[in-house]
Amino acid sequence: MKYPGGFKNLGNSSVNYANRGMSFEADINITNSYYKDNDIAIIYKKPTPITINKVDYKSRVDAVIKEAHFNTPSTTDYNGIYKGRYIDFEAKETKLSYFPLSNIHKHQIEHLESIVRHGGIGFILVDFTKLDKIYLLEADKLVSFINNFKRKSIPLEYFEEFGYLIKPKFNPRIDYLSIIDQIYGGCLWKNF
Amino acid sequence: MKYPGGFKNLGNSSVNYANRGMSFEADINITNSYYKDNDIAIIYKKPTPITINKVDYKSRVDAVIKEAHFNTPSTTDYNGIYKGRYIDFEAKETKLSYFPLSNIHKHQIEHLESIVRHGGIGFILVDFTKLDKIYLLEADKLVSFINNFKRKSIPLEYFEEFGYLIKPKFNPRIDYLSIIDQIYGGCLWKNF
Repeated sequence: MKYPGGFKNLGNSSVNYANRGMSFEADINITNSYYKDNDIAIIYKKPTPITINKVDYKSRVDAVIKEAHFNTPSTTDYNGIYKGRYIDFEAKETKLSYFPLSNIHKHQIEHLESIVRHGGIGFILVDFTKLDKIYLLEADKLVSFINNFKRKSIPLEYFEEFGYLIKPKFNPRIDYLSIIDQIYGGCLWKNF
Repeated sequence: MKYPGGFKNLGNSSVNYANRGMSFEADINITNSYYKDNDIAIIYKKPTPITINKVDYKSRVDAVIKEAHFNTPSTTDYNGIYKGRYIDFEAKETKLSYFPLSNIHKHQIEHLESIVRHGGIGFILVDFTKLDKIYLLEADKLVSFINNFKRKSIPLEYFEEFGYLIKPKFNPRIDYLSIIDQIYGGCLWKNF
């Protein structure tokens, strides 16, 4: 009787659509928190870019946005620093057994290209949810696929050959920085 | 007669409060666009962090946010890459002749500290609007002030002694990367 009727609200009659397909993003955010809490890397998800049209200023500290629109992102979702290197990536999920390039905006690919040109580490993480496989594909491999093949999607075989499979662990969940260590090895944390 | 009545809307009868105190931010954004367009650096302002409560899905592409709240930022406003180095900073304006530390969140200062610890370049830009002077102060100088003095604001003299005055130019407007060149000189763009 301590929680009268409390469990009634835990039913699944109202599906929370906001959380659909969010588990990959949630797992990456938890991974980034692990990296941050253990002082391994400082990597954040950027807030969703929006244009605010109307704001209600109830008080100085409690403003409520009453109308806003989502913008097309011009950069990737995640960036930060690891062992002295600038890190930049986009994370995507697909239920298919190939990766449709329509999942990534042209601006985001151009952004990753310029990050690499400026000495940063750029990549995409793709979660093939039905296959239960997560791959890291470096930005230059992504760009060379787009430049060399006139295809609308990247087949799984390309990820298998040129990407890196990330095996989910308990903690950190999606340890993509272990792959970065593997690829960049001695090229991390130079004394500037 | 080509633009009938077009100029009527340019009057100042309705003040655009959203743009108050935005000129410094606008100038930094224009500077960052200049850096990007000339392939000098890739530095962006992060979107304002918000929590979305209600969204109207008019159509698949035209969602309208109907209720959202501003969050306290846990990182700084700007980050990116310059000559292979991770760059991270916060920009603030003050009408006073000193810089109140209440202008910067504790989380943001801790963020800048950890960026430096991980090999990045962290700083603040402060526009003393009444004095018409913009200073760059490195994160370690900001932190050492906070640790050594139990004061609620940083006097202008501290910026004069330990900071770098940025003289506004036509293009790029607030050329803070010229100061980074001056400070870090040979420590930029190492071949990894």
